[in-house]
Amino acid sequence: MLHNAIFNLMEYQSIINKISEEIRPLLNNGKVASYIPALARVSPNKFGMAISTVRGEVFSCGDAGERFSTQSISKVFTLAMVMDSMGDALWERVGREASGNPFNSLVQLEYEHGIPRNPFVNAGALVVTDCMMLENAHPLDDLLDFARKCAGNPTLDYDREVAASEKATGHRNAALAWFLKSYGNLVNDVDKVLDVYFHQCSLAMSCTDLARAFLFLAHGGTDPVSEKIICGPRQAKRINALMQTCGLYDEGGEFTYRVGLPGKSGVGGGIVAVMPGELTIAVWSPGLNSAGNSLAGSKALELFTTYTAKSIF
Amino acid sequence: MLHNAIFNLMEYQSIINKISEEIRPLLNNGKVASYIPALARVSPNKFGMAISTVRGEVFSCGDAGERFSTQSISKVFTLAMVMDSMGDALWERVGREASGNPFNSLVQLEYEHGIPRNPFVNAGALVVTDCMMLENAHPLDDLLDFARKCAGNPTLDYDREVAASEKATGHRNAALAWFLKSYGNLVNDVDKVLDVYFHQCSLAMSCTDLARAFLFLAHGGTDPVSEKIICGPRQAKRINALMQTCGLYDEGGEFTYRVGLPGKSGVGGGIVAVMPGELTIAVWSPGLNSAGNSLAGSKALELFTTYTAKSIF
Amino acid sequence: MLHNAIFNLMEYQSIINKISEEIRPLLNNGKVASYIPALARVSPNKFGMAISTVRGEVFSCGDAGERFSTQSISKVFTLAMVMDSMGDALWERVGREASGNPFNSLVQLEYEHGIPRNPFVNAGALVVTDCMMLENAHPLDDLLDFARKCAGNPTLDYDREVAASEKATGHRNAALAWFLKSYGNLVNDVDKVLDVYFHQCSLAMSCTDLARAFLFLAHGGTDPVSEKIICGPRQAKRINALMQTCGLYDEGGEFTYRVGLPGKSGVGGGIVAVMPGELTIAVWSPGLNSAGNSLAGSKALELFTTYTAKSIF
Amino acid sequence: MLHNAIFNLMEYQSIINKISEEIRPLLNNGKVASYIPALARVSPNKFGMAISTVRGEVFSCGDAGERFSTQSISKVFTLAMVMDSMGDALWERVGREASGNPFNSLVQLEYEHGIPRNPFVNAGALVVTDCMMLENAHPLDDLLDFARKCAGNPTLDYDREVAASEKATGHRNAALAWFLKSYGNLVNDVDKVLDVYFHQCSLAMSCTDLARAFLFLAHGGTDPVSEKIICGPRQAKRINALMQTCGLYDEGGEFTYRVGLPGKSGVGGGIVAVMPGELTIAVWSPGLNSAGNSLAGSKALELFTTYTAKSIF
Repeated sequence: MLHNAIFNLMEYQSIINKISEEIRPLLNNGKVASYIPALARVSPNKFGMAISTVRGEVFSCGDAGERFSTQSISKVFTLAMVMDSMGDALWERVGREASGNPFNSLVQLEYEHGIPRNPFVNAGALVVTDCMMLENAHPLDDLLDFARKCAGNPTLDYDREVAASEKATGHRNAALAWFLKSYGNLVNDVDKVLDVYFHQCSLAMSCTDLARAFLFLAHGGTDPVSEKIICGPRQAKRINALMQTCGLYDEGGEFTYRVGLPGKSGVGGGIVAVMPGELTIAVWSPGLNSAGNSLAGSKALELFTTYTAKSIF
Repeated sequence: MLHNAIFNLMEYQSIINKISEEIRPLLNNGKVASYIPALARVSPNKFGMAISTVRGEVFSCGDAGERFSTQSISKVFTLAMVMDSMGDALWERVGREASGNPFNSLVQLEYEHGIPRNPFVNAGALVVTDCMMLENAHPLDDLLDFARKCAGNPTLDYDREVAASEKATGHRNAALAWFLKSYGNLVNDVDKVLDVYFHQCSLAMSCTDLARAFLFLAHGGTDPVSEKIICGPRQAKRINALMQTCGLYDEGGEFTYRVGLPGKSGVGGGIVAVMPGELTIAVWSPGLNSAGNSLAGSKALELFTTYTAKSIF
Repeated sequence: MLHNAIFNLMEYQSIINKISEEIRPLLNNGKVASYIPALARVSPNKFGMAISTVRGEVFSCGDAGERFSTQSISKVFTLAMVMDSMGDALWERVGREASGNPFNSLVQLEYEHGIPRNPFVNAGALVVTDCMMLENAHPLDDLLDFARKCAGNPTLDYDREVAASEKATGHRNAALAWFLKSYGNLVNDVDKVLDVYFHQCSLAMSCTDLARAFLFLAHGGTDPVSEKIICGPRQAKRINALMQTCGLYDEGGEFTYRVGLPGKSGVGGGIVAVMPGELTIAVWSPGLNSAGNSLAGSKALELFTTYTAKSIF
Repeated sequence: MLHNAIFNLMEYQSIINKISEEIRPLLNNGKVASYIPALARVSPNKFGMAISTVRGEVFSCGDAGERFSTQSISKVFTLAMVMDSMGDALWERVGREASGNPFNSLVQLEYEHGIPRNPFVNAGALVVTDCMMLENAHPLDDLLDFARKCAGNPTLDYDREVAASEKATGHRNAALAWFLKSYGNLVNDVDKVLDVYFHQCSLAMSCTDLARAFLFLAHGGTDPVSEKIICGPRQAKRINALMQTCGLYDEGGEFTYRVGLPGKSGVGGGIVAVMPGELTIAVWSPGLNSAGNSLAGSKALELFTTYTAKSIF
């Protein structure tokens, strides 16, 4: 192992190329999310990887430029939008602990009287979206602007077909939203919150977009490329902490153990990880493991931290 | 104790009068359901009791003639409507075991993958209503006709104000319905099922109405007064069995232990109990105990079985 | 169906003979309890049935005279021993509601802070045994005397081999006992309670013994044959109510629905049911269903109530 | 905030002095563990803090030299003892996810069929101790030797009085051990495992001892002072990852959010945190918060990372 090694930056390219080869046999082991047609028809053979460094370098391979459905990864954007403004008031409505249950479970919500376990389980994300809507007059536009700013890409957009499909099949999210409402932990109209939430999940981005969009989390809250302030340094650190604990559904401990970096996954097959002070790395492979995380994507990140000895620990 | 005693039927009147006096101090110990204005403004001092025997006698006291919101008691009518026609197909969509959890819990529903524990927890009643809607072209009219037939009272009606209030505040029932839908265990449109369900809960009946309406369950499925067949004898026996096990929310064991008769309660403060082969007894007192059952009503029924030694055990 | 039929008593013999034939194909569908050798080596082809009436008649067929391990059925004896003497104090240490969970679950015990759900789940039975030990200087002898008195059979005994095996493998019961102790809901030494409990489970009785031993529950607490008072009439009624709600592990609702009589089962394959005022019926078939109840035995009792139209409902 | 600041090492002393003053008002807000006399009689006014750096510097203040009961902190030593030797075989017997439940809960263990959620909940620690006993002929001596080696202090010892008290009152740990045994996830004799476990918990160490003993985790598995290899670099990183996710009972997310360092707490009031590559910091204050973690200790560590901007994120 190359513990504490200094990399010639150019090595990143050869490392991700190598990983890209190594994980190929795994691509068909996962199961592509099938609950909506738009996700189900994505090829399981897609694989992309992109690195953005705080010095502005970008490395990528495979399908790193192709957009996919960010799904739960988008929860980081809404969270970042409210972290600064709400302060500790946010934590009266949502917790900060790992769930240990599937991301869409209603069980914990009932045992804990309507306070979702953390901002990344679906119930918690609905609360965060509700908070964001209270502070933004045009939540759909404002969220899109925010994501575009983070990614430095004004062409980002929602996938309206995915959003419509989510709505048509998102019965369990509707159940979660009504359940939150029954506990008084949803302020806006349930249908409106669900509409914003389904659009948010449909946000389409590529690995390159995502690596860049998360770069502020590796750089104290400021995008090092545009020098725009996305959030304060404390908030950036805290979002990383939350991703470390709760970012990979009920596999957060496994990911922490194997990869050792804070990260956020989505059922579209994307995962973004952050090495504070250095870089971000986004990976995409649509086949999911039983916890709903990209199977080959998780492995690719594990190989990356093994080969580079990057880890926060 | 008067075990196996033969009562001069006229004694029933004096027994319920006596009970009516004895429970008076308890009337203010319970808590009137407050989640909708129409229920909250009912006086906690109301108390009524009515007995119907299979020979056609009727005894009543107090506010036995005043209509109140039957709420969960109405679940017995929808169940009776589908028991004959659906046969065992019903039990593929809903279980038959006591819940041990509050009537509106979502926890068990998740652990048991969308199959409600029994037809009397809210989730189970929503499924039964959904079944009833599949078999009745005009579910609201047909249910009302059914209840009127059982009670021999063509003036029974829904309380539209209560139904509207239920809808406006029934967030948790909406959550349950969407949750069932997410498991594929709700066929009709969620909003339509909720509309029928909220109307069903609003059905207004008096103790006298209820005692008469349940009489078919004490008489093998046939109303002994009108001689109309409501359901088959096996179904009647089985509805009684279900009420025994699951009719009093998560207090079914307590009620079985103290009262020893199958029964069904509602948060409007009503409870109806059945002594198979002999009689039914309905009681109303709006103050509820912590399990959501009429506090004085439960005690009144316990006194009734103590004084008369009526019990199925 | 013969609802409300009057049976010539002699018909019972032909009914149980008929049932005995009909259930034969089911004998190999169940799974004999295998956790201890002494239970595992019982032939799955054993089948016996016995009826005792309050008038003293006895009917039996098949292996009704062969002793088997009563297991959880013995919990009724310890409960009857403490019901009279302890009064409501018992219910401060154990509940009266159906469990909805397997009989040896620790989950509910934790959620409910060490108060077992009812006297028939293992944790509850351990508490009842602990209570019985507080009132009986020689608990093993006193329990045996009690069972002998109920059954009118001075030769009844523990199966020491079974008791020893239970001890050697009863890790989960040890866990339950220590867990109760941790909540302060076990007074005696844990090892001593377990020793009594394992012996109690090993009590060996035949169908004929069991039908007779439960006859006091069909007759207001007094054995109609010996005229000995076993418990008061209220206690008898209440033990029946508890068996109705909680007597068949987490299948109590199913049994109530199908059989319609209070009963108690054991993993030795026995089930005893009570028709208050009339008779008791014991059945034995070692093959168990997934809930731990005798598969053919449950079916035999269902056929019995169908053929005789006996039911409390 | 001093993000990325370089500290003059001497500043650590003034920082911990300052923190020591600031947390003083909190000392009486917590609740000293009272389940055994030896813990209960410790003064809530004790407060100590010690830092060890990988360059060998040591800073301390207050009661940093006074030994206290390490309790759950000792779980890190047994884990480190088996991590190298067992490899992935360990993870067939214990998980790696945050619990979300109290450290001594039996609920999760049942839902997850006897596989404890992680090595730091009590059930998981019992399994790790069981593993350690399989590999060490004299587990009590070998564990003590290991802790002495880590701390570079040959005088460390168990507190026999504490160990005896743990045994006398550790009913719930006994329940956990028997429950594990019932799932076949405890190889050694239950009583022997409990004996080792209770001794392990009684290990007495000071803040200075603990900071030094954990230094190998900040330095790739090798004690930088003695240059002894305690475990491999991968194991060190992984122990840190496990502490990050599961080290603070069901408050791991909160601690990650507020402190941002991997750490391990004990009900004796100690917490040790690791800043990989730099230092370890141990704190002691016996008053606990509702999650069982040192109340003032948690705050002290939060202040430390705020003042120094040390964080892995």
